[in-house]
Amino acid sequence: MASIVAPATAAALAARYDQVRGVSETLCEPLEPEDFVVQSMPDVSPAKWHLAHVSWFFETFVLKPLGGYTAFDPAFEVLFNSYYNAVGEQFSRPDRGLLTRPTVREIFAYRAHVDDAMRRAFAAGRLDAATLEIVELGLHHEQQHQELLLMDLKHVFSRNPLDPIYRPRSPAPSAVPALGWQRFGDARVAIGAPAEGFAFDNERPDHDREVPAFRLADRPVTNGEYLEFIEDGAYRNPALWLSDGWSTVQDKGWRAPLYWSQRDGAWTEFTLHGREAIDPGAPVCHVSYYEADAFATWAGYRLPDEFEWETAARSGQPGDGFMDDGVFHPAMPERGQHFGQVWEWTRSAYHPYPGYRPAVGALGEYNGKFMVSQLVLRGGACVTPRDHIRASYRNFFYPHMRWQFGGIRLARDDGKEA
Amino acid sequence: MASIVAPATAAALAARYDQVRGVSETLCEPLEPEDFVVQSMPDVSPAKWHLAHVSWFFETFVLKPLGGYTAFDPAFEVLFNSYYNAVGEQFSRPDRGLLTRPTVREIFAYRAHVDDAMRRAFAAGRLDAATLEIVELGLHHEQQHQELLLMDLKHVFSRNPLDPIYRPRSPAPSAVPALGWQRFGDARVAIGAPAEGFAFDNERPDHDREVPAFRLADRPVTNGEYLEFIEDGAYRNPALWLSDGWSTVQDKGWRAPLYWSQRDGAWTEFTLHGREAIDPGAPVCHVSYYEADAFATWAGYRLPDEFEWETAARSGQPGDGFMDDGVFHPAMPERGQHFGQVWEWTRSAYHPYPGYRPAVGALGEYNGKFMVSQLVLRGGACVTPRDHIRASYRNFFYPHMRWQFGGIRLARDDGKEA
Amino acid sequence: MASIVAPATAAALAARYDQVRGVSETLCEPLEPEDFVVQSMPDVSPAKWHLAHVSWFFETFVLKPLGGYTAFDPAFEVLFNSYYNAVGEQFSRPDRGLLTRPTVREIFAYRAHVDDAMRRAFAAGRLDAATLEIVELGLHHEQQHQELLLMDLKHVFSRNPLDPIYRPRSPAPSAVPALGWQRFGDARVAIGAPAEGFAFDNERPDHDREVPAFRLADRPVTNGEYLEFIEDGAYRNPALWLSDGWSTVQDKGWRAPLYWSQRDGAWTEFTLHGREAIDPGAPVCHVSYYEADAFATWAGYRLPDEFEWETAARSGQPGDGFMDDGVFHPAMPERGQHFGQVWEWTRSAYHPYPGYRPAVGALGEYNGKFMVSQLVLRGGACVTPRDHIRASYRNFFYPHMRWQFGGIRLARDDGKEA
Amino acid sequence: MASIVAPATAAALAARYDQVRGVSETLCEPLEPEDFVVQSMPDVSPAKWHLAHVSWFFETFVLKPLGGYTAFDPAFEVLFNSYYNAVGEQFSRPDRGLLTRPTVREIFAYRAHVDDAMRRAFAAGRLDAATLEIVELGLHHEQQHQELLLMDLKHVFSRNPLDPIYRPRSPAPSAVPALGWQRFGDARVAIGAPAEGFAFDNERPDHDREVPAFRLADRPVTNGEYLEFIEDGAYRNPALWLSDGWSTVQDKGWRAPLYWSQRDGAWTEFTLHGREAIDPGAPVCHVSYYEADAFATWAGYRLPDEFEWETAARSGQPGDGFMDDGVFHPAMPERGQHFGQVWEWTRSAYHPYPGYRPAVGALGEYNGKFMVSQLVLRGGACVTPRDHIRASYRNFFYPHMRWQFGGIRLARDDGKEA
Repeated sequence: MASIVAPATAAALAARYDQVRGVSETLCEPLEPEDFVVQSMPDVSPAKWHLAHVSWFFETFVLKPLGGYTAFDPAFEVLFNSYYNAVGEQFSRPDRGLLTRPTVREIFAYRAHVDDAMRRAFAAGRLDAATLEIVELGLHHEQQHQELLLMDLKHVFSRNPLDPIYRPRSPAPSAVPALGWQRFGDARVAIGAPAEGFAFDNERPDHDREVPAFRLADRPVTNGEYLEFIEDGAYRNPALWLSDGWSTVQDKGWRAPLYWSQRDGAWTEFTLHGREAIDPGAPVCHVSYYEADAFATWAGYRLPDEFEWETAARSGQPGDGFMDDGVFHPAMPERGQHFGQVWEWTRSAYHPYPGYRPAVGALGEYNGKFMVSQLVLRGGACVTPRDHIRASYRNFFYPHMRWQFGGIRLARDDGKEA
Repeated sequence: MASIVAPATAAALAARYDQVRGVSETLCEPLEPEDFVVQSMPDVSPAKWHLAHVSWFFETFVLKPLGGYTAFDPAFEVLFNSYYNAVGEQFSRPDRGLLTRPTVREIFAYRAHVDDAMRRAFAAGRLDAATLEIVELGLHHEQQHQELLLMDLKHVFSRNPLDPIYRPRSPAPSAVPALGWQRFGDARVAIGAPAEGFAFDNERPDHDREVPAFRLADRPVTNGEYLEFIEDGAYRNPALWLSDGWSTVQDKGWRAPLYWSQRDGAWTEFTLHGREAIDPGAPVCHVSYYEADAFATWAGYRLPDEFEWETAARSGQPGDGFMDDGVFHPAMPERGQHFGQVWEWTRSAYHPYPGYRPAVGALGEYNGKFMVSQLVLRGGACVTPRDHIRASYRNFFYPHMRWQFGGIRLARDDGKEA
Repeated sequence: MASIVAPATAAALAARYDQVRGVSETLCEPLEPEDFVVQSMPDVSPAKWHLAHVSWFFETFVLKPLGGYTAFDPAFEVLFNSYYNAVGEQFSRPDRGLLTRPTVREIFAYRAHVDDAMRRAFAAGRLDAATLEIVELGLHHEQQHQELLLMDLKHVFSRNPLDPIYRPRSPAPSAVPALGWQRFGDARVAIGAPAEGFAFDNERPDHDREVPAFRLADRPVTNGEYLEFIEDGAYRNPALWLSDGWSTVQDKGWRAPLYWSQRDGAWTEFTLHGREAIDPGAPVCHVSYYEADAFATWAGYRLPDEFEWETAARSGQPGDGFMDDGVFHPAMPERGQHFGQVWEWTRSAYHPYPGYRPAVGALGEYNGKFMVSQLVLRGGACVTPRDHIRASYRNFFYPHMRWQFGGIRLARDDGKEA
Repeated sequence: MASIVAPATAAALAARYDQVRGVSETLCEPLEPEDFVVQSMPDVSPAKWHLAHVSWFFETFVLKPLGGYTAFDPAFEVLFNSYYNAVGEQFSRPDRGLLTRPTVREIFAYRAHVDDAMRRAFAAGRLDAATLEIVELGLHHEQQHQELLLMDLKHVFSRNPLDPIYRPRSPAPSAVPALGWQRFGDARVAIGAPAEGFAFDNERPDHDREVPAFRLADRPVTNGEYLEFIEDGAYRNPALWLSDGWSTVQDKGWRAPLYWSQRDGAWTEFTLHGREAIDPGAPVCHVSYYEADAFATWAGYRLPDEFEWETAARSGQPGDGFMDDGVFHPAMPERGQHFGQVWEWTRSAYHPYPGYRPAVGALGEYNGKFMVSQLVLRGGACVTPRDHIRASYRNFFYPHMRWQFGGIRLARDDGKEA
């Protein structure tokens, strides 16, 4: 791993450290202490676990190796280790919601303790180039957990019949934009992140691919289009579904995206702003890969693969539609904008790029060991920090998962009539 | 149901209302807001759920029928209904731990709202005799939930590797008393609660039973005796166990009572005072019926039935060893004392007494519908309010359950040599 | 255990051995080899397992202790041990249906091998009194497995959409008899089996009970009455059910007895004669304790306890309505007949009688270790050998179980108006 | 789909029909009727189900559309439909082992009925070109089920402590060959099956890929090598495993390949010849993708992707090591032989080739709907018919599956030192 885009002086990284760590705490301002505790399914972690784990990361990979550091609480080494077997044992993941202690107040004290040590290390110039790289990784890691914190909180709140509101707003229905197609590919394309600058190891090594000509929709699928799919009986029609998808639909009783619910005939959607009417012009969100694939089949198209997506996205830049906007619910992006609002499912398996090598040591567990049975999503969503995303960024989830902000962008082979 | 032992004037009951309601809140003083939220297994309810549900009881069965009462929050009717189908729908029991809202603060406000309405009803003399009986039932109900709150909190804390402490103490090991036997029975004995005075419907109707002569141990089984049972290989010896018990031992991997754990060869026990060394002279606690029965088999004795227990206990009175002592962990009772410290498993199925009739209406669901597959425990424990217990009191749990404070008292047929 | 009613000479028992062993094989005549293999739920055993296990019983408890016996196959000691821990390991119960080998032919050879050795032992006069008692127990044991074989086969066939027929018949609908009540009790009654003559240990020791006056229906509940219960919405009305019963109804989606199915509005019942229309005048069968109890509640009555049942039945004798009739499906018994056709649920827990002692050694596992969480059924059914039953006979099942031929006989306290 | 390699006249296909159908029945010769019934896990089907289902295929897709055909039994349409939603309902897959009827004899009669109709249709020249293609597909389909039948039978037998033998043999340990590496790639390679000749739709369309230089082991991994991996503690070392793999190892308690078992220190393997000692020189078999990947990591190499495998295999032809040899257990193939003995895991997700279109109608369900979460295996195994396999053939299983005859061939990037 090399330093960030502009050569990262320790000073710049120190400032960024303060900024990113501050965002995590700002996101928690609307929460009551009780909101930090609950784990509503095994995939979800309590908010206070996220706040502690990201601090554990700096403690474990920066402060302890540096020496002269006194751990806030030795028990935290196991308690807030997520999945790093090389570090040691981990507290059982599905039991994270059993821990009433440490309290939220204690975890904020833990954060302050780590922040204090980090700031002193920065000030004393004790962080060498290799360590600064780990700090930079730690900040991207914390940004990932900022998104997870919002995803998880939404899931927790959604299970409460009182429909708690994270942040209130007055919803304004969107206009429904026409669907257009853009032509890309028929080219040899540079894929992945170059060796210079920050990127996760799963984006490397960069390499060329031949990408045949294809067309990509100029906007994601809308709620209105998805409603047509529902009303056409899609959730009762096995012909549209992958075999695993159809089993899942039946086992789970799915009949709409996660967080949708039909009351007296009208569809509503649970959001971080509380329960709202479905906005037909907004992008559909919280669909599984199975649903995205079935929708594409129903519509007569297909999902893009991740190389097609990256080919199309290389021309643009992240704009609106990120966590920084403070909206936390997807709106329709600008026509032709590939970044933000909803993650877009691709039909690419999350596998290593040719010549991939995970990092050495515990940090090698960051990405590589998850490279089976998951699918790649691209582009970032309304709960992703804007400066966390890039064209080569690979997110990944299992095909049945829905609590991430995942949506659909259609593709087709070039030449096919729409 | 008739009024309490001394004729319960409304004034006396109003005073008792304040006392019992106050105890529930006093018990919560050591808790952090986070401690009120978690449900560590489906049998457990979060502390804030208990606090709300007992208030819901007064709201549903006293205040709403009285008229002129404005509900604190209409959603609570479903949210805090435990199992009264006649009242209406209930929020899913195993999901009680998903509710971060209402917050603890809001639930204390709910309690204040109900208390205020109850006090005004008392003051205005609006409660007739039948309603006063329901109030009295509601107070006994709240006392049951005080015990449950402590049982549940202990279970929640026990799942935390940090071993949280509810209330600190300095443990003082007990002397190990010799085991003696007392002779009872060979008589026609009055069983159950007479029609006058407060009792639960499951203690009625009172009736006579012939109880043959039997001998009952003059104290419960100790931890030290139970350790011998463990060290004799009891948890690996199917010959000692009921068939269901042996399956349970194997499925759950039991090798000691709940909350016991062996670290570096030494046995410790998680208590509401934190983790402590096993005290060989204290009564064994948190054993299932299966373990109690296997222990009795191993020891060459048997468990008493509930009529034997009641026969023996009729001569005494509840003394020490209750919640009121503020100890919350069992100590050895006085020789020949049958009440307090640990509930004592009997080998009696929890079935209706001859001529049993449940109350009419929703309150008929209080006890009668649980009369299958459970076993009776008698006598109260160190987490039971002293004035809640009596010789005819029937507690009941499934044979595999261990989180109640259940212990063992041995019995044998008369004439058998010890 | 003492010998059978008339002092069992070895010769009489030898004849009975041939008879009982022969019945087991006669029952299998309608089966194809494939029918012997399948285990349709963990409670069910394949027919060939039953045939082998009952032979294992004689091999293990008679022939091996006798000496000079060569086992048919040493592997059978584990394979066909049901639950005797004192004998040794047991092949996993829910996996009995995995065994394609030994084949049916081999198991019949195993039976012949055991029979041959038994007959030689009888002929040589090698069986002493204590061993003859075990032989007698083994024959009652085999009779229990004859009933199980039919119960299990019915369950296996019922899961096949082809509705296989064990034995064909032309059903003739019954007349629906009026319901009458008989008065019993108000007496001190001898309960249980006397020390002389064959009985299972769970029927002993015999003892007196005071049985208050009660009334017992003079016939079991009919299908027609049960249909009224269904059509009155009973399976949707929690007020009628024990709490565990209501959970079970919802979890399993019960809406009628086991083997009933509604096709185009008409109810049919799967029987050992294939699928038949419901006969309104026949006794309802294959109901759980929960359903029996809910039916009694709905009807305004209750179930008898086992002492009431035995009080009433002591006056009569087993007549028609047993396996020997070759009908294998319940018909309406004679008015006032308590034996045969359907087992009758009582509300008595299956617990030991006062002073109960299980047999010493492995045979002590026969009954005693099952004395928790089950309920007693009485009287025998159309799949029970007639000479296997008696007034003191205690059958037992868990309250959710339905594949035994269990029906309902109503009781009420004396004096209650019908 | 076009006709088979040499232009398939109806006559040639009729002969091949007889041959393939005959092989299915020959494979069943060693079976007892009981062996045809059991389903030892949901993935397994009973042998008689396989025999019926492949006949159902011809009945459903050839004979019924042809007209003038009388179904053997109309109930079979549902009973033996595997997963074709477009045809209609299917009998529940995990319940296939509940069906004792139709008997084996009836299913052979069903086969004869279908064969008779097929032969008459051939003889009468009633099969047009499109139908002949379906017949050809049906024969390849039956060959797939021949392999499944052997896989499933092995699994069923393996669950029996008697270690049944499908076919006896005297095992002769192999010599352990040295491992060599062959260089391939650095080329533009034709991948997939051309439009002419029989192939499954998942092998199409054929297309070119750039395949960088790589090296491929000249033989599969041996049992001896795999034993070193085990003895090095691999099943206890999370660092070697994909995250899902490590969870699976722990959940299932894996410590060796499926069918291996350690008795008194020595490893044995259950085979279709009964239980045998592990042969260190034979290819390791019945490993999951997780184990194959972990082994490659431990060895310092990787698995090939499917394009690399196909690149290497294009130069060769299927030789020995197939079902036709009658061995049914893998031996070491010739050096550099890529076909036969064990299927080889690749690290390629089973996804559609660019431009893939499933067949129209029900037969479109044959392959396409399984294209998620599975991985590709290549080359065929000792239970695969030789004329069923080709270089472009794509087999696919979920990463945790082990009951297929799956082994490991190592790859490495070119230039890496061995």
